[in-house]
Amino acid sequence: MNSRAIALPIGRLLILISLMMIIPAITDMFAHNADWQIFLVCAILVGGFGLLTSIACQGQGRPQNFREAILFVNTAWLVFSFAGAVPMWASELNISFTDAFFESASGLTTTGSTILTGIETLPPGILLWRALLQWIGGIGVVSLAIWLLPSLRVSGNQLFALETSETATKPYGRIAPFLFRLLFLYSYLSVSCCLLYLACGMTLFDAVVHAMTTVSTGGFSTSDASFGQFQGLSVYWVATVFMLASSVPFLYLIRSFENRRFEFDVQILLLFVLITTGAFGVLYFERFVVHDTPFHMLTLAVFNVVSVVSTTGYGANDYLQFGAPVIAIFFVLTFFGGCAGSTSGGFKMFRIAVLLSYIRVLLQRMVRPHRVIAPKYHGKRISISILEGTFVFAVLYSATFVLFAVFYLFLQMNLETALSASATALANVGPGIGDIIGPAGNFQNLPDAAKWLLAIQMILGRLEILGGLLLFTPDFWRER
Amino acid sequence: MNSRAIALPIGRLLILISLMMIIPAITDMFAHNADWQIFLVCAILVGGFGLLTSIACQGQGRPQNFREAILFVNTAWLVFSFAGAVPMWASELNISFTDAFFESASGLTTTGSTILTGIETLPPGILLWRALLQWIGGIGVVSLAIWLLPSLRVSGNQLFALETSETATKPYGRIAPFLFRLLFLYSYLSVSCCLLYLACGMTLFDAVVHAMTTVSTGGFSTSDASFGQFQGLSVYWVATVFMLASSVPFLYLIRSFENRRFEFDVQILLLFVLITTGAFGVLYFERFVVHDTPFHMLTLAVFNVVSVVSTTGYGANDYLQFGAPVIAIFFVLTFFGGCAGSTSGGFKMFRIAVLLSYIRVLLQRMVRPHRVIAPKYHGKRISISILEGTFVFAVLYSATFVLFAVFYLFLQMNLETALSASATALANVGPGIGDIIGPAGNFQNLPDAAKWLLAIQMILGRLEILGGLLLFTPDFWRER
Ligand SMILES: [K+]
Ligand SMILES: [K+]
Repeated sequence: MNSRAIALPIGRLLILISLMMIIPAITDMFAHNADWQIFLVCAILVGGFGLLTSIACQGQGRPQNFREAILFVNTAWLVFSFAGAVPMWASELNISFTDAFFESASGLTTTGSTILTGIETLPPGILLWRALLQWIGGIGVVSLAIWLLPSLRVSGNQLFALETSETATKPYGRIAPFLFRLLFLYSYLSVSCCLLYLACGMTLFDAVVHAMTTVSTGGFSTSDASFGQFQGLSVYWVATVFMLASSVPFLYLIRSFENRRFEFDVQILLLFVLITTGAFGVLYFERFVVHDTPFHMLTLAVFNVVSVVSTTGYGANDYLQFGAPVIAIFFVLTFFGGCAGSTSGGFKMFRIAVLLSYIRVLLQRMVRPHRVIAPKYHGKRISISILEGTFVFAVLYSATFVLFAVFYLFLQMNLETALSASATALANVGPGIGDIIGPAGNFQNLPDAAKWLLAIQMILGRLEILGGLLLFTPDFWRER
Repeated sequence: MNSRAIALPIGRLLILISLMMIIPAITDMFAHNADWQIFLVCAILVGGFGLLTSIACQGQGRPQNFREAILFVNTAWLVFSFAGAVPMWASELNISFTDAFFESASGLTTTGSTILTGIETLPPGILLWRALLQWIGGIGVVSLAIWLLPSLRVSGNQLFALETSETATKPYGRIAPFLFRLLFLYSYLSVSCCLLYLACGMTLFDAVVHAMTTVSTGGFSTSDASFGQFQGLSVYWVATVFMLASSVPFLYLIRSFENRRFEFDVQILLLFVLITTGAFGVLYFERFVVHDTPFHMLTLAVFNVVSVVSTTGYGANDYLQFGAPVIAIFFVLTFFGGCAGSTSGGFKMFRIAVLLSYIRVLLQRMVRPHRVIAPKYHGKRISISILEGTFVFAVLYSATFVLFAVFYLFLQMNLETALSASATALANVGPGIGDIIGPAGNFQNLPDAAKWLLAIQMILGRLEILGGLLLFTPDFWRER
C-alpha cells in the first residue's frame, strides 16, 4: 500500500476546504462578526497543512488499486470532518470538540442532525459554513457513487445503460471529464433552486443557505423552526421539487438534459409510489389534528414526506403531534432513501426494485420448478454479482441498524430514541422521532459517546457500510 | 389441485385432536369440574366431523405435489387452531372467540403468549389442554421442517449429511419410518423432563404440564408467575437443559443417540456463543438490581436468556426491571431462535452461520478479486439455492416484522409494544417487553384486530413465512 498516493489527494482536498473557509470569513467580516478572524486563521492553517502534504507527496499520483481507494475514502471523511470541526470549535459558539465534530460530520455526510439551538441567532459565517459543508459533501457523495462504489457492487450504477457506462464499469479510471458535467449539473440545480427561493420571498442569505442544503439533501437550516419560519406555500413546493430532483440518479438527470427527454426508470417510479403512499397516509391522520385548507394540508404532508424520503430532513411543522400512526409512517420512511447515484442516503429504491424482482422470481420458481425465470431490472437481467451485493447490503444495513441501536440503549437512551437515532444516522436523514431527537428536540442532550458513535454511523452510511467495514477485515491489510 | 387429497389428512388429524380432548375431559371429571362435559361434547363433534371427512374422501391418498402440500399445511394450522379454540370458548373461562382462537393458535404454534390471567386458579382440564396443544404443535413443527420446508429451500436440513438425507432431499416422500423415530425421541425427552421435574419437587400435574411445554419450547405455565412459582434452583437448571435440547436439530439428536457420540455442528456452537454472551450481559446489569448469591443470579440470567433464545418464553422473574440495557438484550435476543429442525422458532442459527460465511467471502472477494473463494458451512460448500433461500428469508423476515409492527402502531399501540409484539409473535417466543405484553403484562388488553393479526403472524412464523406467503402469489393458483 502506497500511503503517499493517499496523502496527496487528501492534501489537495484540504487546500480546497481551506479555500472554502474564505467564504464565511468574508461574510462574517462584512457582518462585523469577530469570527471572521477564526475562519481566516483556520483557512491558513488547514491550507498550509494541505500545501505541505501536497508538496511532500508530489509526483505520487493517486490511489492505484481498490484497497488504496478504500483507505483514501475513509481517511478523507475523517480528516475533513476534523478540518470542518476546527472553525466551529474555535468560534464564539463555545461548544466542545465532540459537538463540533458531530456537527461537521453531520454536515459533510449531508445528514443534518444538529447539536445547536437558537440557530436563528447565530452569526452568518457559521450558518454559511454548515451549508457549505453539506454542499461539498453532496458532490462528494455523488462522485463516490460513480467512482468507487461500483466495485463494491452495491451502488446500482451498473444498472444504467449509459453512454458513460465505461466509467461505471472501470473503477478509479479517468472520470475527470464526467465529474465536470456532474459539477455543472449540481451548480445548475443549486443556482436554479436559489433563484426560485428568492422569487418566493426568501432573503438572499436564506436562499443561498437553503439552496445548498436542499440540493445536497442535507437539511441544515437558518432557524430552529427549519422551514416553519417561512410564510406562504410556494417555498415548500420549490423545496419539494428540488429535494426530489436531488433524489434521482444524477447520471439519469444528465442524460435527460443532454437527450432532452425523460426515460422511464423503475426506481424513480418506486420513489413516487412510496412518496404518494406516505403522503396519503400522513394526510389521513393529519385531518384529525390540523384544521386548514386541503391544499395547505396536502402541501405540508407532501413536503414532510419528501423531506424524509429524500433524506433531507427539513421540518415544516412538528408532525410528531399527529399521533402514533404518523410517527410510525415517518419512522418507517426513514429507512428507504432515494435513488442510487443521488445525494440522498438510506437503503435506496433500486435495491427495493432488485429485491422485489428477485423474491418474485424465487416464489415463482418454487411453484413452477421447471420453468426458467430470471430476475430483471428495467427489462434487463440482473447479474448474480448485483444480486449478491444487494442482499449483502440488506443484511449489513439491518445489522448495522440493530448493532448501533443496542449501543444507544446501553448508553441509557429509551427504545424510541435509540432506534430512531440509529436509523436517522445510518440513512443520513437528520432528525429522528421522540422528544429528544425529534424535529422539536436536539442532539445536544445526548451523551458524548453517543455523538461519536452517531458520527461514525453517518460516515458508514455514506460509504454504503461495506466501504467502511472492509477496513476491519484482516484480508484488507494483508499484503498479497 | 385435488382438494380431497387435502381434506383426507385434515380429517384424520381432526380425529387425533378429538382423541386428545378426552385427556382433559377425564382430568376434569376426576377434579369434579363441570368442564369435562364441554371437552367430551367437543371431542364427539370434532371427532365426528373428522370421521365424516375421512370417509367422504376415502382412497384419495395424500398431497401429491408441492402446491397441495402447501395448501394442506396452511389449512391444517387454521383448522386446528379453530378446533383447539372451541372447548376453551365453550368452557367456564367465559372468553370471546377471538381470545379463544388467539390462545389456541398461540398454543399450536408453540408461541405461548396468553390472554388469560389468574392462571393458577383455572381448572386442570384447561391447563392440560393448553399444554397438549403446545406438545402436539411442537411435533408438528419438527415434522414440517423435515417433510415440506426443504423444498422451500429455507429449512437448513439440506445442510446435514445424514443417513436419512434421502428424506431431506425428497420432499413429501415416505417419512413414516423416520417420523416414528422422531416421535420416540420427542416422547423420551418429554418423559425424562417430567421425571426430573418431579425429582425437583414439582407436583405431578405441574411436572406433566411443564414437561410438555418445555420440550415443545412453548412456554405455557400453570401460574401467572410462570417459573417464578417454584422454589429452589434445580428446577431452573432442568428446564434450561431441556429447553436447550429442544433447540438443537432433532435429526442431530437422533443421530447422536444412535451413534452414541456428539459431533461438532456450527449452528449449535453459535447458539452457545449467543447464550453465553447474552447471559454475561444480563448478569452484568443484574448485579446492580438483584442482591443474592452469585450462583442464584447466574441461574436466573442463564434461565431467562435460554428461555428467550430457545423461543420458550418462561419467566423466572420480571427481568425488565433490570433497566434499559437488559430490555435491549432481551429485545434483540427475541429475533434469533434456536437451530433448524428443532421445535424452536425465530431466525435460527444456521442462517446466521450461512450469512456470516457468505459476507466474509464477499468481503474477501472484493479485496482479492482473482482468488476463488466459496462460502462454506461446516466445511462443505454452500449451494447457491441455499444462499438464495437464506437471503430471501432474511429479507422476508425483516419485512414481515416491520409490516406487522406498522399494523400494530396503526392500532394505537406504542412503539415499544408494537415492535415487541411483532417480534415475539413472528419468532414464536411468547412474552414481549413493556408494561402491556411483557412478562408481567397480558395480551388480553390488546384490541381484537391485533389478536387476529398476531395469530396470523405466529402461523406465518411457523411456516417460515414463505410457506404462507406463497398462497398470495397468483402463480400458485394458476393451473399449469
Ligand atoms: K439529511
Ligand atoms: K414459545
